Amino acid sequence: MKQSQLFTKLLKEAPAEEKSTNAQFLIRGGFVYKEMAGVYTYLPLGLRVLRKIENIIREEMEKIGGKEILMTVFQPKNLWEETGRWQKGIGEDVMYKCEGEGQGTVGLGPTHEEMVTDIIRHYVSSYKDLPLYVYQIQTKFRKELRAKSGLLRGREFDMKDLYSFHASQDDLKEYYKKATQAYFNVFKRCGLDVILTEASGGDFTKDYTHEFQVLSASGEDITVYCEKGDFAQNKEIAKLSAGEKCPVCKTVLKEASSVEVGNIFPLGTKYSEAMKAYFTEKDGSKKPIVMGCYGIGPSRTMGAIVEIHHDEQGIIWPKEVAPFSVHLLSLGQNEKSEKLYQDLQKRGIEVLYDDRENKTAGEKFAEADLLGIPQRLVVSEKTLKDDSVELKKRAEEKVTLVKISKIKDYV
Amino acid sequence: MKQSQLFTKLLKEAPAEEKSTNAQFLIRGGFVYKEMAGVYTYLPLGLRVLRKIENIIREEMEKIGGKEILMTVFQPKNLWEETGRWQKGIGEDVMYKCEGEGQGTVGLGPTHEEMVTDIIRHYVSSYKDLPLYVYQIQTKFRKELRAKSGLLRGREFDMKDLYSFHASQDDLKEYYKKATQAYFNVFKRCGLDVILTEASGGDFTKDYTHEFQVLSASGEDITVYCEKGDFAQNKEIAKLSAGEKCPVCKTVLKEASSVEVGNIFPLGTKYSEAMKAYFTEKDGSKKPIVMGCYGIGPSRTMGAIVEIHHDEQGIIWPKEVAPFSVHLLSLGQNEKSEKLYQDLQKRGIEVLYDDRENKTAGEKFAEADLLGIPQRLVVSEKTLKDDSVELKKRAEEKVTLVKISKIKDYV
Repeated sequence: MKQSQLFTKLLKEAPAEEKSTNAQFLIRGGFVYKEMAGVYTYLPLGLRVLRKIENIIREEMEKIGGKEILMTVFQPKNLWEETGRWQKGIGEDVMYKCEGEGQGTVGLGPTHEEMVTDIIRHYVSSYKDLPLYVYQIQTKFRKELRAKSGLLRGREFDMKDLYSFHASQDDLKEYYKKATQAYFNVFKRCGLDVILTEASGGDFTKDYTHEFQVLSASGEDITVYCEKGDFAQNKEIAKLSAGEKCPVCKTVLKEASSVEVGNIFPLGTKYSEAMKAYFTEKDGSKKPIVMGCYGIGPSRTMGAIVEIHHDEQGIIWPKEVAPFSVHLLSLGQNEKSEKLYQDLQKRGIEVLYDDRENKTAGEKFAEADLLGIPQRLVVSEKTLKDDSVELKKRAEEKVTLVKISKIKDYV
Repeated sequence: MKQSQLFTKLLKEAPAEEKSTNAQFLIRGGFVYKEMAGVYTYLPLGLRVLRKIENIIREEMEKIGGKEILMTVFQPKNLWEETGRWQKGIGEDVMYKCEGEGQGTVGLGPTHEEMVTDIIRHYVSSYKDLPLYVYQIQTKFRKELRAKSGLLRGREFDMKDLYSFHASQDDLKEYYKKATQAYFNVFKRCGLDVILTEASGGDFTKDYTHEFQVLSASGEDITVYCEKGDFAQNKEIAKLSAGEKCPVCKTVLKEASSVEVGNIFPLGTKYSEAMKAYFTEKDGSKKPIVMGCYGIGPSRTMGAIVEIHHDEQGIIWPKEVAPFSVHLLSLGQNEKSEKLYQDLQKRGIEVLYDDRENKTAGEKFAEADLLGIPQRLVVSEKTLKDDSVELKKRAEEKVTLVKISKIKDYV
């Protein structure tokens, strides 16, 4: 993409009320535009990042058998009344509601257990129909009292929710492990080190549920953890504190702020019993379907990536989620640069090409640092004297002069 | 995809209140699930079709310079007050509204002129920043009194909206022609013959706006048109009727029901003046940005395709929007079929493989006809005697026996 055709511009400052690092950089770089607190439009650069995160998630969900569907924002009241959640808990506190058109009051989905259970009970009748796994990547809405952390806490936000359906608790347990591994894969590819953390089951289960926490000063959670990886709990449920010893390996525990980027719940039969989602067992008996649910917020993940991967100048995108692989800067050398741009694109490399003629070298460098594309190529009179371009990785200081004919070995 | 792993099942009947052909077939085939009137969940097969339509649109929008963004469902009241539409017109009659969380009342976007104009005024200051074109593919919400036509009229539905911004009316006119051609390309690729029809400008303009109408008995519009293509108007504004003569070529005019699958509006400066979206001209004067807007409903397009392309047995998907290219049916020959399935997939062919062992040949054939995948391959004891598979196109009666070794020449 040519930067001259990109309508967004670098902003000197983000809105004053945006204190978080992710909102600051993402707004200043033209990745997102703030509509209201916790509600952001994705501009071309930001949408590219979001789609890359979504596609990583999609690939990992398909690998564990997930079938993609797309449920609706509008939630029928009657489904939520079946589980008693319309007037209680999330349906009361968190769900936006509005007057429908000949539909009575409808909710805006904050989560989709009721809806997916209704769909599945429509299709599943026998143990032969199980297990099955469905997921969606969809826009969710939640009333959040505070929405001051940029993409970390949205009132309208992007969510991947996977739901699994099983004939037995054992089968759920086995899949739960697979899903855990898939989540580790997702976050690794997104450049995030996550800690699998035990958390309260809430109204779901007496067992623990699990969260994927990224240590970050920007986080609203606190994780109590053992550095060797033998123990981690959300502070909300932890009976141990920093300074005490890990119950497994006796290492001294730590505590730190963290961002919850994913969570998984063994739902058991809570929803299937309430909504009469039964199946017929081999022996002819009727049993409630055993369920699990697994969430990742792609938009929150995007915010967390920025919180972790940045320096004072701007964002440093990890390779797999970067909006482009290469940022090509022409310093008054658009003819040679254009050719290089075309060549790189022909080889399938995603290039953002700064072809703007009304920007100084200093402005172009500063903007490249803010946008955070992993590799920067500079074409200038000086580099061309040597038939070369200057290559710099965003995460490193080192600058290398590379012959244009050899560039394909580097990027 | 293996049909044994697809959780949806053929339904003998659609819900009684679903009278439209598209809803009947799409629900029975497990493409969509009805949540409430005008609100449908996309199941795996349906989501594949929707994504293909979206990607066709995306490709054609990119060709005319469109840059993709993703705006929000939540609409700030203050933006709609700037144009006076919060309390009047679409904001009063059509927009769902709900109580925000510390946000006051928010709207659910039925259209995004206000929001996109606000974004653009934030970034555009000079004639040098123009023209520019942004689009999104996003979920919209509209209060519809009637929502009885399946995907043809949704309360929650998928929409592509492109907005163009120009320094002059002449530049808008030129782009308007390009966008018109892009729309013809989209609909042709979707298998739809469209008539470019003049319609009322509504509160947008004194000029005509233009609709893309598909003739279909299921349509809620009536188009008055000349078969030679010299004249077409929406009945709502037409001063001529069927039987009268075309003002251009004197052919006798016809009238027919039709579905509006797209529309384009020369907005002019209506929004930019109301919202003070000005730019500085070469001579230093300030002028309002000239705008156009261009909509296609991918979900409505999907409904229209089914209305046009079906027979009594089911859907007949046009090639580019079909959920799969090939429907491979194993009649008790899963070993040979599995190998063929793998081979076809390796060659990049999208295959739905009916590997189910508890279905009769008759059931498999009936389901294949309902699902409407363009090419059907049958592997049976009989065909294998001849080292062959049976090939039948969904749109044709002819059945051909093809050697397995030659299959790649056919599909």
